[in-house]
Amino acid sequence: MKDPLGREEAVKVKEALRLLMEQELKQLDTETIRIEEAYKRVLSKDIISPENLPGFNRSTMDGYAVNPADTFGASDTMPVYLQVKGQVLMGEKPEINIKRGETCQIPTGGMLPEGTDAVVMFEYTNVVDDEMVEIMKAVSPNENVILADEDVKKGEPVFEIGQRLRPQDIGALAGLGIVEIEVFRKPVVSIIGTGDEVVPPDKPLSVGEVRDINSYNLFGLIQESNAVPLKKGIVRDEYDKLKKIVEDAVAESDIVLITGGSSVGTKDYTSRVIDELGDPGVLFHGVTIKPGKPLIGGIVSGVPVFGLPGHPAAITVSFETFVGPLLLKLSGEKHNPLIPSRRTVKALLSRNLSSSVGREEHIRVSLEQKDGAVRAVPIMGKSALIRTLVKADGIVVIPMNKSGVYEGEEVEVRLF
Amino acid sequence: MKDPLGREEAVKVKEALRLLMEQELKQLDTETIRIEEAYKRVLSKDIISPENLPGFNRSTMDGYAVNPADTFGASDTMPVYLQVKGQVLMGEKPEINIKRGETCQIPTGGMLPEGTDAVVMFEYTNVVDDEMVEIMKAVSPNENVILADEDVKKGEPVFEIGQRLRPQDIGALAGLGIVEIEVFRKPVVSIIGTGDEVVPPDKPLSVGEVRDINSYNLFGLIQESNAVPLKKGIVRDEYDKLKKIVEDAVAESDIVLITGGSSVGTKDYTSRVIDELGDPGVLFHGVTIKPGKPLIGGIVSGVPVFGLPGHPAAITVSFETFVGPLLLKLSGEKHNPLIPSRRTVKALLSRNLSSSVGREEHIRVSLEQKDGAVRAVPIMGKSALIRTLVKADGIVVIPMNKSGVYEGEEVEVRLF
Repeated sequence: MKDPLGREEAVKVKEALRLLMEQELKQLDTETIRIEEAYKRVLSKDIISPENLPGFNRSTMDGYAVNPADTFGASDTMPVYLQVKGQVLMGEKPEINIKRGETCQIPTGGMLPEGTDAVVMFEYTNVVDDEMVEIMKAVSPNENVILADEDVKKGEPVFEIGQRLRPQDIGALAGLGIVEIEVFRKPVVSIIGTGDEVVPPDKPLSVGEVRDINSYNLFGLIQESNAVPLKKGIVRDEYDKLKKIVEDAVAESDIVLITGGSSVGTKDYTSRVIDELGDPGVLFHGVTIKPGKPLIGGIVSGVPVFGLPGHPAAITVSFETFVGPLLLKLSGEKHNPLIPSRRTVKALLSRNLSSSVGREEHIRVSLEQKDGAVRAVPIMGKSALIRTLVKADGIVVIPMNKSGVYEGEEVEVRLF
Repeated sequence: MKDPLGREEAVKVKEALRLLMEQELKQLDTETIRIEEAYKRVLSKDIISPENLPGFNRSTMDGYAVNPADTFGASDTMPVYLQVKGQVLMGEKPEINIKRGETCQIPTGGMLPEGTDAVVMFEYTNVVDDEMVEIMKAVSPNENVILADEDVKKGEPVFEIGQRLRPQDIGALAGLGIVEIEVFRKPVVSIIGTGDEVVPPDKPLSVGEVRDINSYNLFGLIQESNAVPLKKGIVRDEYDKLKKIVEDAVAESDIVLITGGSSVGTKDYTSRVIDELGDPGVLFHGVTIKPGKPLIGGIVSGVPVFGLPGHPAAITVSFETFVGPLLLKLSGEKHNPLIPSRRTVKALLSRNLSSSVGREEHIRVSLEQKDGAVRAVPIMGKSALIRTLVKADGIVVIPMNKSGVYEGEEVEVRLF
């Protein structure tokens, strides 16, 4: 996309996302894991219940198992008397057969014996002697009982493909007797550092050099997105080296992120490499977002390849806005759009913020309590390298069509 | 705490939490890890910057490095002309010394050469020939420059002890050249299953038995809380066996959770064991919360020990309400109270819900979109074992002093 003067024109955020999302991506294969490893993994198959659950008529109370007809009309003042035929033991099939006029003790979770289909709670009973109990409340059929197939029926679908497993889902799988499941492999995201001035953090620094902040920020962002980071190291600003490493990364991973190198050379190399390796290659070069405008997005062999802006603050915004949604698509998760992907909090803006119409602005803010209200305090300053990243609690987004937000206006803070 | 009839009286949620939180707990020791493993870990030491950052005067633009005095009065119509003395290379200390009337090309991120302290952006320049450039804008000192110590000063505290590391914090550590850090060990939480009717999920089930849902739900909840689950297996309802395993678990872990066994026997054993092993022993037995009333909480040798209710839905509520806050305290994290620990969403309740005054009720809900609004639909039904856990998107809490919530009222849903 070029403007009338022949310059690359920045595309809108929505358009850029659309261009990426409509591409066919390399599919994740699947793997079989134990349920102890299943937290946050995504099911690659429906789960059908292999049996009825709980599998037997189960008491939900401590009390006496009865035939409800025997309790008809029973009350405080007009109790009925039943003969006690022993007790049900936890975890065992009761051998007793309860006839009319009889009952037996049953614990919560115990199996109802033959001849009973309701339970009277202890609170409404009185022991007369070893063989007799007073029942002071009538119960209806199935009262205080879970039926054999009431929780889950055999053959019933319990989970659909695409479910990202939460703690209780892992409990439910255990309840179904399922200890191994098939899930999508976690997406692998390669990180390629570039730039003649960028050095790894454990190397001594010469004057004029800077350490590789971005690869490590991305490393954490990828882990946060339930994906696996793969560090490919830092390459110098040389076309052939960059091309080789991108080619390798595309073969080894599901998304490739090229970062660092704020020099013009690197940026040119990145789009040339994506175009040369890829079909369709570069999809856009520049996005109407701040920070993060110089973003390059493309596809090589079904693998999204991004040239991320060099500025540390732009890394977080680009990742959140473009890489995150792609990772979610890739992961196979059937995401419920009513459930926000991040924690958010409402706050009052502490000062006026102006913004350029036609550009989506992401403002880093810290939260403070003042006069009983939560306020979002924008973190300003050009020296936005380490300090502002560390001080920020979250981000406020000013949409493209707004020219700013006033002091005291309520904003939604997307928390880190 | 006994009521006038001598029965154990349930304590309020706040009181129960206070009783637990005021106890002195076993302290976590620390360990040294690489920053690649640091995501979500908690710093056990302040981090002081070992140096100035960026460490040299750095250009934030592509352009020409100048002495601002040379650009005084420069404009479109009245440009000034400077002599070009080569260019600054990325990552290198420039050997050029710029005198009055001279300039040199500089890339974003490049180091300003001797004699310059500002940068004119390319957009405001015109190349006249190999040796001459036209400057069309005046700049002030330090314009488009980050000073050597502007981001972080040597000796400045960058992180405080108790910081839970986010992706950008890991980037910042890399930027400081710190690749190993000292963090608190992750808390270890033991899970002890109990109950004669409870069997592991990979064992065949006899009639009357149920599978161990709770241990697996807890396994996931513990992982979600950045702690390490330790499964101690299932013990039969025998006092000596339970005592032995709790004693072992207290020695091996930071919190002990006893679950399953809804029988009265297990409950009695649990509080006896906690009292016998521990000083102070049982702190409370029963809490005014639903589900989850039969909770037992105590301390043994500085380790919180919980007897959790047997019902799967109560497990999640008890964990969230009591174990979660304790784990946060244990972890060493200095938590910002303005930042919610869970994702939440506002929704309109789909039906009237009544609740008992004097009891905090946690209602499982699913979310749906209807008539343009997000609605929270309570999931009812006594068969609240697996199905309602799996169907729920989150929880709505009705506080102790409310007798219910009306249909259409806005509620906050704490999302799973």
